[in-house]
Amino acid sequence: MDPREVQSQENSHQNQSDSRLAIDIGGSLIKLVHFRRSADSTVDSPNDSLATLDVIDNDSAIKGRLHFAMFETSKINDFLEFINSNKLHLNAGGRANDVLPEEKVFVKATGGGAYKFANLFKEKLGIILDKEDEMDCLVAGANFLLKAVHQEAFTYMDERKDFVQIDHNDLFPYLLVNIGSGVSMIKVDGDGKFERVSGTNVGGGTFWGLGRLLTGCKSFDELLELSHRGNNRVIDTLVGDIYGGMDYSKIGLSATTIASSFGKAISDNKELEDYKPEDISRSLLRMISNNIGQISYLNALRFGLKRIFFGGFFIRGQEYTMDTISVAVHFWSKGEAKAMFLRHEGFLGALGALMSYEKQS
Amino acid sequence: MDPREVQSQENSHQNQSDSRLAIDIGGSLIKLVHFRRSADSTVDSPNDSLATLDVIDNDSAIKGRLHFAMFETSKINDFLEFINSNKLHLNAGGRANDVLPEEKVFVKATGGGAYKFANLFKEKLGIILDKEDEMDCLVAGANFLLKAVHQEAFTYMDERKDFVQIDHNDLFPYLLVNIGSGVSMIKVDGDGKFERVSGTNVGGGTFWGLGRLLTGCKSFDELLELSHRGNNRVIDTLVGDIYGGMDYSKIGLSATTIASSFGKAISDNKELEDYKPEDISRSLLRMISNNIGQISYLNALRFGLKRIFFGGFFIRGQEYTMDTISVAVHFWSKGEAKAMFLRHEGFLGALGALMSYEKQS
Repeated sequence: MDPREVQSQENSHQNQSDSRLAIDIGGSLIKLVHFRRSADSTVDSPNDSLATLDVIDNDSAIKGRLHFAMFETSKINDFLEFINSNKLHLNAGGRANDVLPEEKVFVKATGGGAYKFANLFKEKLGIILDKEDEMDCLVAGANFLLKAVHQEAFTYMDERKDFVQIDHNDLFPYLLVNIGSGVSMIKVDGDGKFERVSGTNVGGGTFWGLGRLLTGCKSFDELLELSHRGNNRVIDTLVGDIYGGMDYSKIGLSATTIASSFGKAISDNKELEDYKPEDISRSLLRMISNNIGQISYLNALRFGLKRIFFGGFFIRGQEYTMDTISVAVHFWSKGEAKAMFLRHEGFLGALGALMSYEKQS
Repeated sequence: MDPREVQSQENSHQNQSDSRLAIDIGGSLIKLVHFRRSADSTVDSPNDSLATLDVIDNDSAIKGRLHFAMFETSKINDFLEFINSNKLHLNAGGRANDVLPEEKVFVKATGGGAYKFANLFKEKLGIILDKEDEMDCLVAGANFLLKAVHQEAFTYMDERKDFVQIDHNDLFPYLLVNIGSGVSMIKVDGDGKFERVSGTNVGGGTFWGLGRLLTGCKSFDELLELSHRGNNRVIDTLVGDIYGGMDYSKIGLSATTIASSFGKAISDNKELEDYKPEDISRSLLRMISNNIGQISYLNALRFGLKRIFFGGFFIRGQEYTMDTISVAVHFWSKGEAKAMFLRHEGFLGALGALMSYEKQS
């Protein structure tokens, strides 16, 4: 399980006048957010761990703590067991009193799995998944993070991370790019005001799926770890490889620009086994990050958007991924547009589903 | 060697008052165009074979035949031997008399290999490669084909090929997308008037390189052949796979839309060997074709271009490739933009280099 798991689940069934559970079941990952009201944790401060976040919401005076967790969708039975053993679903819908285990409870859920696994939740735990639209939730989650959480957004380029102070009155419009298994690109004009303008099927699932086939890695994290030590130039064709070491300066391509990802694999007398998994992973990560950065920029350009926020669990705070995306946006926009990242990148949908309890009440 | 090779090379050294040779050396492939003036072939008619093309150019009154050939760049020594044994380089620059084998001859060349292999040509055959800019040549070649060759451009969608009659007065502007190892996207405003506005490193070299690593195929054609028999749904995650068979109709995604290319490879307990090479090849071809179609459309949109001509040797007249690109352009542009293809797709650069003899004289 991911280190960002829910912590301190002891006594979760006691003395909770208000706790809420929301889940986002994607093609690859299940994301969970659990909110617990508390009187003692009232500081809205960033902390190093991403597993929890203390919240004050001045408007509704809710004080409490958010807990975050992630599972692989393929291990959904482990996830159900985790909910059950920690009794997270009890009182999850924000009702005043605990329900008996055999009673039905409603839990806010989003992502395709909210449909696909609805029966499984009902049969195993008596949970009725109260489905919220995926795009609604992504936008609500992003807006919440950008408005309510201090030091949530940051830029990353040239090994430098800079937090961005967001002026609430100058937040919209922006492009939200959520990189899950696939990628959604959403033009956000305000709270609940948005349009999904584009997307691409080359996303986190592609990195993980292709990477697994090529390297035999068993997990996404293992694949990412490999990429840190790799050198994509072993396998990518650079402009200099085609031009005999020269730049193609007339059109602004330096000798080190990638002309063709994986292009060197065509002419070598090498087989897959002859390449280092590290180099393959790095080439793949760069190819996909760059591609997403480019398509994002082209969509931002269509609508004159200067800010692009990248979310989704593909990124995972990986410096190389963020740097590649940032460089792509910077290069293609000639510095006009800016890539920004979110500390709680993977939980936009789950947070949005959690927000929807408010909307209801 | 490709079937589109130069034919009827016998007697190539005799009775040629005017023959010209031009080559385009890319990251993966060398393309050759050889022009031989002749009195007897004067009909500008399309023929089934792409190996030759009869030409009348009314402006300059040149009559003759173009011969086309292709080699892998990695087999450049075979290519040099082919030129030498067929004496294609002799009189290649359009000079009146043959030169002796030990004399230096000038041959128009483009692509990065014109730089990289300049010394090799000089040492082995005494050929001085007279370098022409790659983008200049692509545009000149495309404009020549679109203006001078009957039934050159066509659309392909839903298994239907329709030749497009191009009005010479209404040709410009258009977007030229040349898919070689990498991809260049060029806004063409007239003869010699153009700008390379974008490109992507996910191109033909990526298909071939990744495909070779994943399937062990030894050639591009073998990999393409495999893709005909494959089913990408075995390995791609569709929207329906995430949504339990349902459409995500609110945002216009049907259950059969690919949500994540290669996404299914993450959760299965399968290894690379458990997947059919056919399915892998098809998934890869679809991923790359769709990606190029999308980025092309987004660039056409920036400049209000309704017509996108796709060239480069990636396509190779493959119906599935063209259909995927066409569908991508149609889908993203909501039918506003049109993908068009060229019968001599792979030879734009080489043809442009050939044109440059005219420019000089």
